[in-house]
Amino acid sequence: MIRVALAGPRGRMGSEAVHTLMKNSSIDLVAVLDYKEIGKVLSETSIFPANYEIPVYNKIEELLQIEKPDVFLDLTTPESVYDHAEHCLTKQVKVVIGTTGMSEKQSSSLQKLSDENQTACIIAPNFALGAIMMMKFAKMAAAYFPDVEIIELHHDQKLDAPSGTATKTASLISEVRKPHQQGHPEEKEVLQGARGASYQGIPIHSVRLPGFTAHQKVIFGDTGQLLTIQHDSMSRQSFMSGIVFAIEKVMQTNDYIVGLENLLTEEGDLR
Amino acid sequence: MIRVALAGPRGRMGSEAVHTLMKNSSIDLVAVLDYKEIGKVLSETSIFPANYEIPVYNKIEELLQIEKPDVFLDLTTPESVYDHAEHCLTKQVKVVIGTTGMSEKQSSSLQKLSDENQTACIIAPNFALGAIMMMKFAKMAAAYFPDVEIIELHHDQKLDAPSGTATKTASLISEVRKPHQQGHPEEKEVLQGARGASYQGIPIHSVRLPGFTAHQKVIFGDTGQLLTIQHDSMSRQSFMSGIVFAIEKVMQTNDYIVGLENLLTEEGDLR
Amino acid sequence: MIRVALAGPRGRMGSEAVHTLMKNSSIDLVAVLDYKEIGKVLSETSIFPANYEIPVYNKIEELLQIEKPDVFLDLTTPESVYDHAEHCLTKQVKVVIGTTGMSEKQSSSLQKLSDENQTACIIAPNFALGAIMMMKFAKMAAAYFPDVEIIELHHDQKLDAPSGTATKTASLISEVRKPHQQGHPEEKEVLQGARGASYQGIPIHSVRLPGFTAHQKVIFGDTGQLLTIQHDSMSRQSFMSGIVFAIEKVMQTNDYIVGLENLLTEEGDLR
Amino acid sequence: MIRVALAGPRGRMGSEAVHTLMKNSSIDLVAVLDYKEIGKVLSETSIFPANYEIPVYNKIEELLQIEKPDVFLDLTTPESVYDHAEHCLTKQVKVVIGTTGMSEKQSSSLQKLSDENQTACIIAPNFALGAIMMMKFAKMAAAYFPDVEIIELHHDQKLDAPSGTATKTASLISEVRKPHQQGHPEEKEVLQGARGASYQGIPIHSVRLPGFTAHQKVIFGDTGQLLTIQHDSMSRQSFMSGIVFAIEKVMQTNDYIVGLENLLTEEGDLR
Repeated sequence: MIRVALAGPRGRMGSEAVHTLMKNSSIDLVAVLDYKEIGKVLSETSIFPANYEIPVYNKIEELLQIEKPDVFLDLTTPESVYDHAEHCLTKQVKVVIGTTGMSEKQSSSLQKLSDENQTACIIAPNFALGAIMMMKFAKMAAAYFPDVEIIELHHDQKLDAPSGTATKTASLISEVRKPHQQGHPEEKEVLQGARGASYQGIPIHSVRLPGFTAHQKVIFGDTGQLLTIQHDSMSRQSFMSGIVFAIEKVMQTNDYIVGLENLLTEEGDLR
Repeated sequence: MIRVALAGPRGRMGSEAVHTLMKNSSIDLVAVLDYKEIGKVLSETSIFPANYEIPVYNKIEELLQIEKPDVFLDLTTPESVYDHAEHCLTKQVKVVIGTTGMSEKQSSSLQKLSDENQTACIIAPNFALGAIMMMKFAKMAAAYFPDVEIIELHHDQKLDAPSGTATKTASLISEVRKPHQQGHPEEKEVLQGARGASYQGIPIHSVRLPGFTAHQKVIFGDTGQLLTIQHDSMSRQSFMSGIVFAIEKVMQTNDYIVGLENLLTEEGDLR
Repeated sequence: MIRVALAGPRGRMGSEAVHTLMKNSSIDLVAVLDYKEIGKVLSETSIFPANYEIPVYNKIEELLQIEKPDVFLDLTTPESVYDHAEHCLTKQVKVVIGTTGMSEKQSSSLQKLSDENQTACIIAPNFALGAIMMMKFAKMAAAYFPDVEIIELHHDQKLDAPSGTATKTASLISEVRKPHQQGHPEEKEVLQGARGASYQGIPIHSVRLPGFTAHQKVIFGDTGQLLTIQHDSMSRQSFMSGIVFAIEKVMQTNDYIVGLENLLTEEGDLR
Repeated sequence: MIRVALAGPRGRMGSEAVHTLMKNSSIDLVAVLDYKEIGKVLSETSIFPANYEIPVYNKIEELLQIEKPDVFLDLTTPESVYDHAEHCLTKQVKVVIGTTGMSEKQSSSLQKLSDENQTACIIAPNFALGAIMMMKFAKMAAAYFPDVEIIELHHDQKLDAPSGTATKTASLISEVRKPHQQGHPEEKEVLQGARGASYQGIPIHSVRLPGFTAHQKVIFGDTGQLLTIQHDSMSRQSFMSGIVFAIEKVMQTNDYIVGLENLLTEEGDLR
């Protein structure tokens, strides 16, 4: 059993993570860290069932000293994340951080701490394994099929187009694909915008309709064939398998790793 | 057996139509009309097999008088179509015309001829039944689900975007859908063109990649659900079922009808 | 404003319907009927917000007499539905019933009541407009493209395969499609079950995976082309547009109508 | 320029390969090998255009001695393939073989020849790069998402179900995925076959309709998300990019390699 402590149990992601870890038979949720006085155990918080008798701490020092977790899972804000990680790494407690927005300076000094203490630290800006695989496969495919377009489909309350995932996918693709002129050199838009946005020459099309959540198709075209990689994300639940994956992985390494995609590669080699 | 005469047997569409009619057990291809001297029977033309002993005529008068077809299927050019139809209708021979580009004047005088002679004349600018149904269903759905976007995907040798079918679909939809603001009022394009082209407020996205032929998806979004109507056309073969359909239909009516969609409606009512 | 009274406000569907009607600007939710003493107004029930001051009745006679609704929307159980409808129709109050499982006898005597009182009664076993349209379009398409297969995809907690919607779709299709042998006469399953289940000769394939909710694709194949009609249902929310649709429709008729598909046809004709 | 000699220029695959190599600017088709006397140059064969003045040989010894190709591309039958490869490898001419059905014994002695002469030999039973990537990605994804189903769709003239690609994909997946019970333990088929065929517990669904060519979807389900990898093959053209890829690759190695997927991995590592 992996002994895990979780910071931020009441947040949107945090509360779902609590349920996920409680259900997981190979993980033991030994404690949670909350900056607020919410009671001695989680079950005292209305949002959790009566049998969740997980001790709640307000001070990380106490938590680490008393509960001695193998892994500290941090789902709080960039403000507190760095301080938490510093405490853990100096005490050789492995860390999984699910947040974005740490500064370059913070990131590099965490790496230093991780190296000095030979203690693993995984930074995961995105826990959606499916989206990460979609991007990884798209990058691999682009090396052989340079003609590609991206269609991303989201609910109609989303403000920005294209989505961050779409532009990230396009930028990963443009790292590997052979430079070339895509589509017909003389193609023209009878209606402006028909051919979508262009990122490094890769067309991106953004659909916005009620009924969608967060979806993306990456379509590669070659003479006589098509290869399509699609990810559909229906809810925040889609992050849970990535959280468990990161916890299992952090137990197998002492390194400082940014992005679950790098753990995927590793995994890939094993097989 | 329906006795059919075909004009334009050597054209791209014509030659495939010849094969289709020869294979059809309820249709008897009794003659073809060709402006060129290509021999006494089709089999003398290298592009047809030896057993295609269909008499070839260069004069429509002769053809009609000698072969007495039930239906005259015209797959030639706008130039000759009108003259052929005139001959047929005055002799009470039903006509199916598979061409675009007749003038308003020609069209209305053909209608007059059809009425006077109580002889059916079907004008079919598009024989692709699947595309016609897609448009019909899209128009029906738009009455209940006003939020809709169109994605059309074609080979990368196509010059214009969006496709004619996409804009026609959008214009049919805008005839019935309740006027309304689609998407988020404050949505913005971080990359220009991401949200596609807009036809009457309906976004259209055009994908161009090798491997595609001619495809279209019409996606309707509603709270908690999506309805998608998709047509994939792989080859000119997709017109053949529409040609047979038109021939069967023209036998059941004496009217002047433009567009197979109107025959579909009829059919729809029967059921 | 259409004055609507709702029976069964605390049920899964009922509670969502309450929210939907409260938000709708052309509908006025004037009262709810509940067999339990849950307070004078809905807001007294914990599951509804404080501003939902909708009077709660336990007796339908009182509700009808005092609130005089235009439409009585019944989302309760088959046990109580008949009795409610009887009261409404005799008092010329239009009825929309969202339930299955009334007996033939009850159904026919409700029709009699509806006729005698010239008061509309709509029975809607299924409020998912998208699914209803999918079935309607599939039936229409089958008249022209007799080769069809159905793929339905659901979450992996669903016990039965295929889904009720899939078999209903297949039975609707088999009402209209020309009888014929589908697939290759000598095709054989190297692995048993590969070609799916067969309903009236129509193959049905059932996919069960986490991540899916309730989805169906009806694929029609013809030489050189494909026509696909797909419905994706993500949540119970997908019933709400059908409930509003039924309320609007019941105001325009005095008939007894079973199944929203019949209202669609009507609608279709108007356009 | 890579100097390529091709064996089997008149076969279905061979004739398309000739066109592909002629068009490719980094490849020089220096000769073809044909067991038949078809003329001094390809252009004398009716199936090729007048400007295809590629010398035709009937004896491989002559061809190798006079034309000194860098790569010998063999698209003939298993009968002749081995003999050709033996000649090439002993003369240090790299070989690409696009055929299946060599015996274990032949295969291992070719490997021996390749090693002794330090000359590359690539055996490619399948040139469809898209299908190969689909299988590779599916295998990678299965390590993280063990719940998976396969849908393969082919034209209705195909006799066997499921397709060879589908079963191969399933067997690759079962090499890596964690063993587990898929779907609901108590799920039952109301109609037999609904849940498809089962290969190592992976459901496979086979659709057969006119309009399809050769298509496959591999769908991975996880809580709240789906990952889909799809390949659509429209024509034999889909093999051409794989042929060029193999020729480029064989120039960069001296090894004996079976299956383009192994070259992909290599490629993958480079990036």
